[in-house]
Amino acid sequence: MTTATLLVSCPDQKGLVAKISDWVFSHGGNILHADQHADSTAELFVMRVEWDLNDFVLAREEIAPTFEKLAIAIHAKWSIHFSDYVRRIAIFVSKQDHCLYDLILRQRSHELPAIIPVVISNHPDLEKVAHNFGINYHHIAVNPENKLEQEKKQLDLLHQYKIDLVVLAKYMQVLSPDFLSKFSQVINIHHSFLPAFAGANPYHRAYKRGVKIIGATAHYVTDELDEGPIIEQDVIRVSHRDSVTDLIRKGKDLERIVLARGVRQYLQNRVLVYGQSASSGLGLRTVVFD
Amino acid sequence: MTTATLLVSCPDQKGLVAKISDWVFSHGGNILHADQHADSTAELFVMRVEWDLNDFVLAREEIAPTFEKLAIAIHAKWSIHFSDYVRRIAIFVSKQDHCLYDLILRQRSHELPAIIPVVISNHPDLEKVAHNFGINYHHIAVNPENKLEQEKKQLDLLHQYKIDLVVLAKYMQVLSPDFLSKFSQVINIHHSFLPAFAGANPYHRAYKRGVKIIGATAHYVTDELDEGPIIEQDVIRVSHRDSVTDLIRKGKDLERIVLARGVRQYLQNRVLVYGQSASSGLGLRTVVFD
Amino acid sequence: MTTATLLVSCPDQKGLVAKISDWVFSHGGNILHADQHADSTAELFVMRVEWDLNDFVLAREEIAPTFEKLAIAIHAKWSIHFSDYVRRIAIFVSKQDHCLYDLILRQRSHELPAIIPVVISNHPDLEKVAHNFGINYHHIAVNPENKLEQEKKQLDLLHQYKIDLVVLAKYMQVLSPDFLSKFSQVINIHHSFLPAFAGANPYHRAYKRGVKIIGATAHYVTDELDEGPIIEQDVIRVSHRDSVTDLIRKGKDLERIVLARGVRQYLQNRVLVYGQSASSGLGLRTVVFD
Amino acid sequence: MTTATLLVSCPDQKGLVAKISDWVFSHGGNILHADQHADSTAELFVMRVEWDLNDFVLAREEIAPTFEKLAIAIHAKWSIHFSDYVRRIAIFVSKQDHCLYDLILRQRSHELPAIIPVVISNHPDLEKVAHNFGINYHHIAVNPENKLEQEKKQLDLLHQYKIDLVVLAKYMQVLSPDFLSKFSQVINIHHSFLPAFAGANPYHRAYKRGVKIIGATAHYVTDELDEGPIIEQDVIRVSHRDSVTDLIRKGKDLERIVLARGVRQYLQNRVLVYGQSASSGLGLRTVVFD
Repeated sequence: MTTATLLVSCPDQKGLVAKISDWVFSHGGNILHADQHADSTAELFVMRVEWDLNDFVLAREEIAPTFEKLAIAIHAKWSIHFSDYVRRIAIFVSKQDHCLYDLILRQRSHELPAIIPVVISNHPDLEKVAHNFGINYHHIAVNPENKLEQEKKQLDLLHQYKIDLVVLAKYMQVLSPDFLSKFSQVINIHHSFLPAFAGANPYHRAYKRGVKIIGATAHYVTDELDEGPIIEQDVIRVSHRDSVTDLIRKGKDLERIVLARGVRQYLQNRVLVYGQSASSGLGLRTVVFD
Repeated sequence: MTTATLLVSCPDQKGLVAKISDWVFSHGGNILHADQHADSTAELFVMRVEWDLNDFVLAREEIAPTFEKLAIAIHAKWSIHFSDYVRRIAIFVSKQDHCLYDLILRQRSHELPAIIPVVISNHPDLEKVAHNFGINYHHIAVNPENKLEQEKKQLDLLHQYKIDLVVLAKYMQVLSPDFLSKFSQVINIHHSFLPAFAGANPYHRAYKRGVKIIGATAHYVTDELDEGPIIEQDVIRVSHRDSVTDLIRKGKDLERIVLARGVRQYLQNRVLVYGQSASSGLGLRTVVFD
Repeated sequence: MTTATLLVSCPDQKGLVAKISDWVFSHGGNILHADQHADSTAELFVMRVEWDLNDFVLAREEIAPTFEKLAIAIHAKWSIHFSDYVRRIAIFVSKQDHCLYDLILRQRSHELPAIIPVVISNHPDLEKVAHNFGINYHHIAVNPENKLEQEKKQLDLLHQYKIDLVVLAKYMQVLSPDFLSKFSQVINIHHSFLPAFAGANPYHRAYKRGVKIIGATAHYVTDELDEGPIIEQDVIRVSHRDSVTDLIRKGKDLERIVLARGVRQYLQNRVLVYGQSASSGLGLRTVVFD
Repeated sequence: MTTATLLVSCPDQKGLVAKISDWVFSHGGNILHADQHADSTAELFVMRVEWDLNDFVLAREEIAPTFEKLAIAIHAKWSIHFSDYVRRIAIFVSKQDHCLYDLILRQRSHELPAIIPVVISNHPDLEKVAHNFGINYHHIAVNPENKLEQEKKQLDLLHQYKIDLVVLAKYMQVLSPDFLSKFSQVINIHHSFLPAFAGANPYHRAYKRGVKIIGATAHYVTDELDEGPIIEQDVIRVSHRDSVTDLIRKGKDLERIVLARGVRQYLQNRVLVYGQSASSGLGLRTVVFD
């Protein structure tokens, strides 16, 4: 079964569920899942609707232009996704292999509906892992002097491999605003329960503070370090017996699971970012549809 | 704002989301939340839709008969609930007071949109707790000989107090099938992670088995002991250091929270029971809409 | 059975477990629980040992002076506690009653081995709750002008009621360094997962940041706001559907449970604070013996 | 640093902590960790003590005979383990690879202090995984007719590879009592929260029962299916949206983590089995020292 998924956000107003459901139904679409949410603080309506394309009367290329008419009428931002388009992921790593293995193995066992054609790293260490699974590996060393130049090479690779999503799987470098302006779909795993311990060495700082629980956070990357919209978080209990080494070990399980969940939700078109609002003080937030 | 909430279940078919949304919209209802689910095993569609009654064109008494026409067409079971009708709860207890206090205090702090006019118990112990909060207390002792007779008195009280929901808040008696045939809306808290340790003395049996986690389960009461549809469950970690007394103490926190969540979800019309199916072996299950 | 519990911390060195165990055993004490921990960062050894006083050969008043000799030899800080001494708690509240009820009910059901002779508040609202349970209530309004003067009254009450521990059960005032210098045993519940959202309005800030999990933290109060040693933390999952009101409601369950656990661990003499170290950057931390 | 770890269980009596600590100390051992527990139901004392062998005055081969004298005096069962002996694990698998990959990768990243020389399977599917990591793979097909004969081959391999521990990493066969009588150190991962859904198809049965949480259990294998002593358990929340396929997917994360934790605790000599007692109805239980 091939499905289409529509993600819509617009100012809240009466009749939106019916209007959008109707648009699908009146063109022959059988709705499989519909979910929506109204954020009263942001006065915003968001909706995700997925339907079977089997009896849909619009040709693939007609769908967007046809929906655009409704979208204009309701002042909506929107995107549409087709289940037979398989996204292409570039995984960025440094030296740690646990998230890399985890993503590849989940992709291989069909948990992640995506293709992983390339791994990019600022270190040569994980080339063998990529090659074992038949994935290309590009080593692009980065230092403060050559950063922009090397990011240019990374962007060229993203273009060349037709990449839709970059996943930073313990990539220990900050992407520049310039990079992000040219490629915005980037998900990172941060090894703390944000906003606690944003920045460097979160496990060491968690140890020093004596917390009883540690966490990990999957989030979109934005210009502000560790301030991007949060997709997924989880935690694990620690005690005085746990050294920094133990926190790192326990945290690795969190990092794997939280990153994989975040990437999976993204690939299933369940994540919608909204909410920047200077007046209400609201930051960028995500709706993650179940 | 007064709202109506419709809970619908029917055989899965095309266009249900649009048909039901449209029915609401075309009568002037502004949909606040709509959620649905299709269970492919049971081939069943279930939907919850809540709308603002402010500009709704149907009078209160016209709503059900009008929707009934659509319901017949789609072969639906359904119920409708209005937010300005406040349900009336009878709490059944034995000797333990923790769930009783918890429910009363949550009701007092507006977490539970309900009225609690009466507490019924097979013991006299908790009369003072009820009276402290101005709630009537009826002591109806039950033994194997007088059970049916005493249940008759309980049922009379439920009628007299116009009760909508019975909550068994650590009521250590089994209700007879006869009772349940006359009053079916009963939620129980069982002090284990069902189906583990159904029946008597779950904490003692959990201790003997040496489990590392214990749980609690809020479920509807049916004729089969501890086999009713599950509404909510939660767990807590235990260790070899925990004696049976510790399991009981830790379990009390679970019982309070799990029962309160289950009752709240019920009161918000989020719980829909479905799924009995001899052919597929499926038991009665719940959808709990978020 | 009456027991003694010794909490010891000292520079790490060889033979400490044997020396301390031997001291107990050689005076006729039957060790019921012994637990210890060596923090290699702080180069510190900490131990908790609890023994049956039944056949102990030292009289109650001889125990401390006798152990002091060993303590001096190993350069230890230490304290000793007897199970037949029941600590006296003053609960400080403002307007919210959920933690107050929770602590009182746990004390009544023998989960908290303590006496609660007095509730002190900067508001009159919860007097009836205290009186229902036969507990004295003192309303001491506090504002920036009269703060030191009113804290003097609070300290007088602590003295008068022979208080051992102050529990801030949603007391929405900061205690001055002067107060803390005169009464240091103070446990607070903070309604966030520290160090995230220290300070005011944590739920509002959590909402604005769009976190997927919220938490609560029981900690000792020190001069630095929300920087005291952490005793206990726990978390609960939230989603985009949860408004600030929902975060507050869900958080109340966390606050109750986390505060109660922290206070119980304190009362069982399981909490030992250690670790301030400018050189290693280590903050004050707790060992919480299981 | 090389350490020795002693695991002791014996009837509870006075002075055991001091006697055992003293035995270590008086032979020059610096105790690094000591933990004990008294189970009042089983009237049993259990202790784990780990010490630095550096200044220990007994030669390696003298330790056991010397301790045996104390052990006889206190009627103890005991075992001793040296940190420089690296245990050898045989992993048994069928067709699923997630636990196999997980154990190998954790061993490679030094989370599991062990050697994995061999993988044994009743299917040929995972040979390539083993070979990728330089691990031998033996395919031994098993059916009801050839079972005992094939188990003989498995036992020969365990002998040949000098195996200390067998880990059933989703091995979909039951080991015979005969096998277990010849090789008793076997840890299994069961894909449910035992004792719920013991036996076959736990995810399908969990789905049919409509539970809101699923779990996994690492346990020792005994003659009674899924009745062996539990080492570790964990759970994850599910909802009506989760199909059986989703339960299987979510469960795989649990299986990986729970099995790895159980194996790690075993390898660190933290797990002690005790407690069979017909009179008290107590089953075999584990102490898992932190």
